[in-house]
Amino acid sequence: MAKKIPYKVYLTEEEMPKTWYNMKAHMKTQHAPFINPATQKPCTMSDLTPVFCEECVEQELNEKDERIEIPEGIRSFYKAFRPSPLVRAYFLEEVLGTPAEIYYKFEGNNTSGSHKLNSAAAQAYYAKKQGLTSITTETGAGQWGTALAMAAAFFGLKLDVYMVKVSSEQKPYRKEVMRTYGANVVPSPSDTTAAGRKLLAEFPGTGGSLGCAISEAVEKAVTTENCRYVLGSVLDHVLLHQSVIGLESKTALDKYGVQPDVIIGCVGGGSNFGGLIAPFMGERLQGKNDIEFIGVEPASCPSLTRGKFVYDFCDSAQTTPLAKMYTLGCGFMPSPNHAGGLRYHGMSPIISQLYHDGYIRAVAGEQSKVFEAAEMFAKCEGILPAPESAHAIRVAIDEALACKKTGEKKRILFGLTGTGYFDLSAYKQYNDGTMTDRIPTDEDLQRGFDTIPHCPVNEGLL
Amino acid sequence: MAKKIPYKVYLTEEEMPKTWYNMKAHMKTQHAPFINPATQKPCTMSDLTPVFCEECVEQELNEKDERIEIPEGIRSFYKAFRPSPLVRAYFLEEVLGTPAEIYYKFEGNNTSGSHKLNSAAAQAYYAKKQGLTSITTETGAGQWGTALAMAAAFFGLKLDVYMVKVSSEQKPYRKEVMRTYGANVVPSPSDTTAAGRKLLAEFPGTGGSLGCAISEAVEKAVTTENCRYVLGSVLDHVLLHQSVIGLESKTALDKYGVQPDVIIGCVGGGSNFGGLIAPFMGERLQGKNDIEFIGVEPASCPSLTRGKFVYDFCDSAQTTPLAKMYTLGCGFMPSPNHAGGLRYHGMSPIISQLYHDGYIRAVAGEQSKVFEAAEMFAKCEGILPAPESAHAIRVAIDEALACKKTGEKKRILFGLTGTGYFDLSAYKQYNDGTMTDRIPTDEDLQRGFDTIPHCPVNEGLL
Repeated sequence: MAKKIPYKVYLTEEEMPKTWYNMKAHMKTQHAPFINPATQKPCTMSDLTPVFCEECVEQELNEKDERIEIPEGIRSFYKAFRPSPLVRAYFLEEVLGTPAEIYYKFEGNNTSGSHKLNSAAAQAYYAKKQGLTSITTETGAGQWGTALAMAAAFFGLKLDVYMVKVSSEQKPYRKEVMRTYGANVVPSPSDTTAAGRKLLAEFPGTGGSLGCAISEAVEKAVTTENCRYVLGSVLDHVLLHQSVIGLESKTALDKYGVQPDVIIGCVGGGSNFGGLIAPFMGERLQGKNDIEFIGVEPASCPSLTRGKFVYDFCDSAQTTPLAKMYTLGCGFMPSPNHAGGLRYHGMSPIISQLYHDGYIRAVAGEQSKVFEAAEMFAKCEGILPAPESAHAIRVAIDEALACKKTGEKKRILFGLTGTGYFDLSAYKQYNDGTMTDRIPTDEDLQRGFDTIPHCPVNEGLL
Repeated sequence: MAKKIPYKVYLTEEEMPKTWYNMKAHMKTQHAPFINPATQKPCTMSDLTPVFCEECVEQELNEKDERIEIPEGIRSFYKAFRPSPLVRAYFLEEVLGTPAEIYYKFEGNNTSGSHKLNSAAAQAYYAKKQGLTSITTETGAGQWGTALAMAAAFFGLKLDVYMVKVSSEQKPYRKEVMRTYGANVVPSPSDTTAAGRKLLAEFPGTGGSLGCAISEAVEKAVTTENCRYVLGSVLDHVLLHQSVIGLESKTALDKYGVQPDVIIGCVGGGSNFGGLIAPFMGERLQGKNDIEFIGVEPASCPSLTRGKFVYDFCDSAQTTPLAKMYTLGCGFMPSPNHAGGLRYHGMSPIISQLYHDGYIRAVAGEQSKVFEAAEMFAKCEGILPAPESAHAIRVAIDEALACKKTGEKKRILFGLTGTGYFDLSAYKQYNDGTMTDRIPTDEDLQRGFDTIPHCPVNEGLL
């Protein structure tokens, strides 16, 4: 610790990771397998490969290799937008007057505006390598769709993005970024799929839902030649790709002899948090450190803190395999005043298992307090954070303020997943003083739990 | 040149510039002084200090010192968003199949989205140091207003931004970024100033103009205690602050033994281009290199390629001192189909003089071709550029394609000033195929020239 850590640490190209980190290699209890809802049996390669790229399915099922090579073609594309900086938050520390050291890994400095590009790059590469000509996905707010549009353009793949209709109308600019990258953005529900036509017939004029957009994207993929479906969070292989965040963070901190005491990330589907903690958690599982891991979710969508650990569908349309995870029920919807992302009803099976086994602490944040933290951070650190990322900022600030009381010099690392450029309607609410909190009541939650399937694998769990 | 240059070069904190670079120290012909329109005499310190911060005025008038120290307080804030990367455009080179080497300095990786923050940081610091409590400015599209809002928040200054009313309505999100940073955004014309009230009385329901916004911001500054007005381009001290771009670029290139053959930047008011070329031009003026400098302007606002080199007002409301510069006339307005910035009628006096003396070549770009370049660049380099920056990309690509024909291995450096996140309505036009070009006719230009003042200092020039 002789050397003072600079404001920002950028790794050199040589220092950038050459392998991803697979936490599962060290988990004593693996998460339960995906279940085929028709057979109630675990999903196999052949259940999954008609939908997903082969290499991604292999990674999905790999429980033994700690390290998985990042192919040269992906490492090359990573150089277009990585390394991302590890920042020492000197300005924030000063404003807080805390003895704690605060570090954050900033993933927002790319045109998609978030960490999502890490997995988009990998999945587009594997699709190309498999000889596919096109891929499909769905997007809600548009962060994931933008990332995949960039990756598809880079690797020369055709891309159809099913964008929830109401989002495509409310966020026309997000759509334009995707279009500029050559993606075909289809407002969902659409008449391009049976699923879309069915919904349109039942509910003419509907604004759509993420569940329907998933159904359309999957249908389009399995009915199109040389096409597969690509998902941006929740799944193990997505967390694997995101481990580049944690690996870069660890290399940067190691260079300065800094071992974090606490690692904090926001959790929606869990891919950013899972990626950030990966190498640190791997060591923790081997008894090599005693880091506290904190996942922060919105109080309005509290899957870890108030959900059930059961089998549930990954989508609200109930078309996917069943995953055992913390869930609010696939029919749960956060209240309309909830701003920003982190609105997924479930949680990554890996994160769910680690939480269940006591390796992760979960905290739920109310959005007014989250935006207060975002404002403070923006003013002193010069970065306008995404509302999602601000959940992690909130808890990092709370931890640092606790240190101020106790005098502890904790080393806090958090993930700053993205920028807030496309979430300014939420900031407007905050600036206007019209932002409200709405924590679901037990009755609200029960309505969501009622949508969890009562099927054989859930026997004794519900 | 033994070491292969990486995709991105980030300087270490120790390598970041400790002084700015003042090109004027090496100019054989200094640009003509600002003229007080009332007296037709050169402006003095005492003419300018009621409006601008003292230290900025001193820098404005400094023609002798090549190096001017960057105070520690500014260097510290620079660490929040600098160094910016110098990027080797390997991907673009490959797509073009050119033997040329292409480099760009990317200034868009900060929340204001552009290079403007470099001078905003300096001017807010000096305002604070002078004991001021507030500053004012105007903004059109909002890039400069956002940058100044960030700097004012950082140094704890109150800020009033007069934002052209029609822009504040068309770009509500830009306004929210400024508000989040605590700025008071006033749609102009407003009833907070005599200038605004006068215009509102004459033209009820007007959408405002940059000229009026400047008048309001200056009036507010000179009628408020402990307040000054801050300008984001054109002036010498702004170019001085922006020299940090060129200095970082030069240090990065020098590390790898790379001397550029061509340096390209977009020009509106000239601050980014002036900053990028500063240390290279300084050496050129001393006969130490033979670099070609190319300023790229929109064909729809061609101040260098088709303007007159005369005295003109810096604002359309004719309230400022007169500057000798290339100008289309202070009443010139680009046609409504012009997208993005670079819509200033005049040009930095330094850049104007260097152009007049043959050190700079000027090229005018048509926007449809500029957006084609932007799209190609976004797809392979992974950054969605601001329309302004895309002017430089267009010419860099043209230079590289010329090298493909001749086989020359030119080293091309260009300035990528910002991101296009807040210009997506222009991208939408491009994506929809509805973008048009509109080059001003000689008659259009004459209408602008007619607004140049016929005053004693312009005798023999018009």
